[in-house]
Formats: sequence, C-alpha cells, structure tokens
Amino acid sequence: MIKPSQFVTTALLGATLALAGCAAPALRGTGDLGVVIERASGTVQIVDTTQLKSIATVPGLGDLSHASLVYSRDGRYAYVFGRDGGLSKVDLLKGVVERRIIQAGNSIGGAVSQDGSLIAAQNYAPGGVKVFKADTLELLADVPAEFGTQGQRSKVVGLADAPGNCFVWSLFDAGEIWVGDFSNPGAPRIDKYRNAGREPYDGMITPDGRYYLAGLFGEDGMAMLDMWHPEKGVRRILDGYGKGQEKLPVYKMPHLRGWAVAGKYAYVPAIGHHEVLVVDTETWKEAGRIAVAGQPVFVMARPDGRQIWVNFAFPDNGSVQVIDVETRSVVKRLEPGRAVLHMEFTPRGESVWISARDDNRVVVYDTVSFAQRVVLPAAAPSGIFFTTRAGRTGF
Amino acid sequence: MIKPSQFVTTALLGATLALAGCAAPALRGTGDLGVVIERASGTVQIVDTTQLKSIATVPGLGDLSHASLVYSRDGRYAYVFGRDGGLSKVDLLKGVVERRIIQAGNSIGGAVSQDGSLIAAQNYAPGGVKVFKADTLELLADVPAEFGTQGQRSKVVGLADAPGNCFVWSLFDAGEIWVGDFSNPGAPRIDKYRNAGREPYDGMITPDGRYYLAGLFGEDGMAMLDMWHPEKGVRRILDGYGKGQEKLPVYKMPHLRGWAVAGKYAYVPAIGHHEVLVVDTETWKEAGRIAVAGQPVFVMARPDGRQIWVNFAFPDNGSVQVIDVETRSVVKRLEPGRAVLHMEFTPRGESVWISARDDNRVVVYDTVSFAQRVVLPAAAPSGIFFTTRAGRTGF
Repeated sequence: MIKPSQFVTTALLGATLALAGCAAPALRGTGDLGVVIERASGTVQIVDTTQLKSIATVPGLGDLSHASLVYSRDGRYAYVFGRDGGLSKVDLLKGVVERRIIQAGNSIGGAVSQDGSLIAAQNYAPGGVKVFKADTLELLADVPAEFGTQGQRSKVVGLADAPGNCFVWSLFDAGEIWVGDFSNPGAPRIDKYRNAGREPYDGMITPDGRYYLAGLFGEDGMAMLDMWHPEKGVRRILDGYGKGQEKLPVYKMPHLRGWAVAGKYAYVPAIGHHEVLVVDTETWKEAGRIAVAGQPVFVMARPDGRQIWVNFAFPDNGSVQVIDVETRSVVKRLEPGRAVLHMEFTPRGESVWISARDDNRVVVYDTVSFAQRVVLPAAAPSGIFFTTRAGRTGF
Repeated sequence: MIKPSQFVTTALLGATLALAGCAAPALRGTGDLGVVIERASGTVQIVDTTQLKSIATVPGLGDLSHASLVYSRDGRYAYVFGRDGGLSKVDLLKGVVERRIIQAGNSIGGAVSQDGSLIAAQNYAPGGVKVFKADTLELLADVPAEFGTQGQRSKVVGLADAPGNCFVWSLFDAGEIWVGDFSNPGAPRIDKYRNAGREPYDGMITPDGRYYLAGLFGEDGMAMLDMWHPEKGVRRILDGYGKGQEKLPVYKMPHLRGWAVAGKYAYVPAIGHHEVLVVDTETWKEAGRIAVAGQPVFVMARPDGRQIWVNFAFPDNGSVQVIDVETRSVVKRLEPGRAVLHMEFTPRGESVWISARDDNRVVVYDTVSFAQRVVLPAAAPSGIFFTTRAGRTGF
C-alpha cells in the first residue's frame, strides 16, 4: 500500500505547478468533481471521481476545522463555510478562490436555496442566519437569533434547505425551530416554533424536503416539523429512546445531516450509545436497533438504500461498519485509517470515499466487493463533498 | 406571449454563429445543462436551466423520432439514441457531435451503467442489446434477443440500468425479462426469466434500483422482478386492473421510464383508461385510482414527491394535469400548447420544462405558482433531458 504521508508535499506542489503553468483551464464536465477539506492547512483538494485522482489544491481558505460546503446550481463553484466565519467561493474549474468574505465570528456551516440563487450561513457568533446572493456573496438578509426578553442571541445549528427557497434552523440556546421564507430575500418571512425541545444540537431535512428533524442534547428524544403541515407545530418523536440505559459520555456529537433514509426507514445515531436506531418514517416510532462498534457519528445510506455505512467517535474512530438493510446486521468492518471523519458516496453509489485524518489519506472503496480502489494523499482530510449534492435537497 | 415559431430560424442561426465564432468554448459548469430533442430536424438544442435559455443547436443526429438519451458520468456528453439506429455522442460544452455510429437498423433507446463506463442500446432490428465503451463507442458486447427453437429474434424494450453495471430488459415477442451483468463486458453473464408475461411493451426500474417493472400489452397486469432477490423470479402484479371495464382504444403507449415513485406509492398510467393507478410499493397492490383528463402517457413525480404531473395521448395531448399527492386530487390543469410530448423537472423541482411539439415551443413553469417562467422556441420538440440524470439510477 502507498504510504500517503510521504506524498503529501509532492502532491501539493504538483497541483500548484499544474495550475500555474496552464493559461486556460481544461474544458470539462463538473458532474464527477468533488472537494476534500484539508482542515489543518486551510486548503481544499479538488478531486475527479472518474479518474480517481486529485486535480488541484486550493489554498487560502482560513480555519477549516468543522468546515462544510455547498455547491452552485451548475456544479462549478463550492461555497466553503469556515469555522472563522469565512465564506469562500471556490472555482473548481480554475482551482482558485474567486471570492471570500468574513461574514461572522464563528460559523458552522450553511445551505443553498432550492433554485441556487441564495447561500445561507448558520452562525454561532453573532448567533443568527445570514443570506447571501450566490453570484456575488452580497448580503441580502441578516436574521439575528434573538430570543427571550433581554435580546439574547442563540447559537444557530441544523440549518437545512427546504422547497420554495426556504431555510429551516434551530436555536440551541433557545430551544426553538425557525422557518424562513426567502422568496423575497430583502423581506424574509420568519415563522418561529417555540418550545421545540431543549438544546437542539443539529438538524436535517429528509431527502424529499418534507420532514425537518432536530436532535436534542438536553432531552432524550427528537423534535420533528412536517414542512407540508407547519400549522401542526413541532412534534416530539423517539421520546426516551435511551431511557433505562446507563448514560455514556459523548465523545463526539453525531452529525445529523448525514442521517440515512432508505425505503421507509430512517437510520439514526443513538447519542452516547453503541447503537443505530431504526425509525419508521410513517409513524416516526422506533422500529429497531442495531448494535455497532462504537458511538456513531455519520450514519449514511448507500444511494440505492441497500447498505448503511457508519463511522464512530473516539476511541473507535479507526473503523467503519457496513449494515445490510434487509437483515439489519453488520456485514463488514473496514479499517481505512486513524481518525475517520467523513464518508461520501459517488452519485450512483458504486464507490465510497472515506477520509482518515490522522493517516493523511482518503481511501476509496468499491461498495459491493469492499475492495480498496485507490488511496489518495491528503493533509488531515475531513469532509468530502461531491458536486451531485447540487441537485439534491438537504445536502 | 412570444410567438416562438417566428424565432426558430433566427435562433438556429444565432447558435451556429456563436459556436463558429468562438475558438475556445466558455468554461462553465455542466450541472445546469440539458438537451431538447428536435425530432423533425434531426437537431438537439443545448439549454441552460439557470439562465432559462438555449445556448446551442447541434445538427446531424439523423432520425430523432422516438429519440432518447443518457449522460456521461461528468455531465459533459449526451449519448443520443436515434430511431435509425444511430448512437451519437454530443459534447455539450463544444456544441458538436463528437462521435456517431449506426449500431442497428431500428433502435428505441438505451441506458448508461452505474459507473458510467458502459452505454447499452436496446434494438428492435436486429433485436437485441449492444453494449459500448462510453469513451470511444467501441462495441464491447452484442447480446442477440434470440428465443424459441428457431433462433427468432425479439424486439427489445424497457432497457434499464441496475446497480453493479447490470442492465435489465424485456423481449416483446418472447415475453421474457433478461438481466445482464456486464462487470466483465467481454463475457457478460445473462440470466433469462421466461414466461414473464405476454408482450412486455416497456419497463422501468425504481429509483433505488431494486424493482424492475414491465408493462404488459398482451395481458391485464404487470411483471415485476426484485433485483435484490432474482432467485424468486418474476412476479405478476396488478393482475386484472382493467377488468370489467370497457376496453378503450390505445392512442399512444405510455412511457414507463417516467413512472413516478413518491413516498411509498408508485403512480402508474392505466393503459387505455383515463386513470392513474396508485400502487403500494410494499405490497405491490393497487391502493387507489385517480381520474384524469385523458389516457396518461408520462406520469412523473416532482422531485419532492408532493405532486404528480401527467400528460396525455391524443386527443387530450394539449393538456397537462397536476395531482396533489396528499389529497390524490387534480389541483391544476395547464395548456402548454399542441401535442405535449414530454416534461422534465429541474434537479430540485422548482421548475418543469414541457415540450409542445406542434406549437414549436418549450414552456417552463414554476411548480408552486404554476406561473409561466419563459417560452423557448424549438423545432418540433419532443424529449427534454437534464444532466442531473447522470447521477441517478433508472434515468
């Protein structure tokens, strides 16, 4: 096996030279491109999922710890949200940062509107949501997450895109869920759902854009809002799913945007437990539990819904397990490297790309044979994001 | 409203000039591109779904009656299947036919493999399936649809891509369903399911790639194969769905690839009847019927599954109806123009593009307000296909 750490410097240098020496970037489709976050160096790699290689490294993106990104409608630009409040528009074809602003003091991610015209950032400090014009990053709307009578501001988490140029998000400190309709971005309509549950720590929307779910850190359950029937208000689901079991320390909060929906079931990380919960999306009741090797972080369905892939918090973060949906059993355990942080399936699911931060590598597997297809060097890689996300809701 | 017919010639000329005068095609993403088939002139238009405009017209594609296409993995190339057996690889960025072969005498479509490496064509004459290398159109496999003891060859219909570089198709004359595994394209493994039902006329695979369904012209029902459990064989579903009702003449066969799956229900055109059938995809039993304005041709779900859009056979082919999924009622009737042949949703469903052949136009609607966003001139347009299909199964 290649020892990727030896190749990191060379690869970075090579990519930079390749770009510098090429006056006109190559004409190419963007449907098989992706971006790998290199958190320690403030760089991103642009990768080609057909050729299985890195085609450029782009520097100058600031603090990329806990970074995420969304794509422009055409798949050419990645909007990278950095922890330092930076919002960078990266041109995948030219391999450069086209535009960059610092829009907050502490930010944890964002979303792109259904029609691609709006980019929304969710901010811890100052707590709130800002909405930008996708083309220019011009600020169009600023929605402070104020609550209570003293004008306190809450950290915002769990921002998701919903049909109709709406965004949905949760207020960690206030225990509220807000829905913003930005059809007229200069005068957004904000609907606030109070008493949604204590300490929502992340959220997601189902792939059809119908159900918004927030995980609750302060309670043993989850909050759910039916976007087709917001008048019904927020409903509590999975109440007491950890009841009667010993509370475990939580080493890393699960990421909810990765929650898997396959067929009529959702597969949800059970916070603190070594379990994946199976939830019936018709009744929103628990339908089963699957024992896994550690505290789940990402629980993701292969695009055909036949497998669920799970990675874990420390100390089990060197492993990935694969669950067969039909039998609800673990059928494979892989060891991609130390500190597995993220997984991303190719658009139609024949492969999965997995980042192993502490081994400075990205490992690509065949999802049927589980054979290793390639190992790519990367500097402390975290999130991996493919351009197909541009055409999907909730990514 | 623009009278599109006046603008067709100008538009064609303009597009040709624009390409001829431009040495280097513009660098751009391919995620918001699409192709409109112009059946009468053997041309295709390349369209931009963000700018809502046509960016090029490409001639020289032969007989495009009943044409369809699939996309390369990167979204740059469209593989156009013509009725004359032509298979053309069109470069969307350069606006030219990069390669073209005549691979059969009479062909009705094709599919692209999960990993994008293989293009399969389904042929009426000589009846069979041919598989090509996507890059070069080099022939890799030729699978004649022979049946019976005399070596007759059947027309092939309902070709669909399935996970694992497999294709599935039906033999109209033989009443069989075949599954081909082309992981090793030089030596494909073909599994044949005989007595699948009389005269399968088209087929589709569910968006998760699990269930292959063939419509039967010679029987009152459908054939279904569970690709996760092919050992269970072909099962008959919806047996006798038209029983006891007066048989109607069929003006146009429905196209099954457009069948809609939304939530746990599939919405299926009832051949000959003015109805859409609702089928429970857990039991594969009929769960309801929705009366519509004519014989349905395409029955398509908006990407969020909240609406089903239906167009119709002659004489009702000037209308499109919109069904609300929750209430199972028609909530809107639109009149895009004469001879509506196809509909295509933008990737995240905010708009739909509809071709009206006899009015030489494509009409784009907002799917929430139903407002007309733009009317584009096109010469006898039929199929409309957006590049997002590259990342999806069954398209």
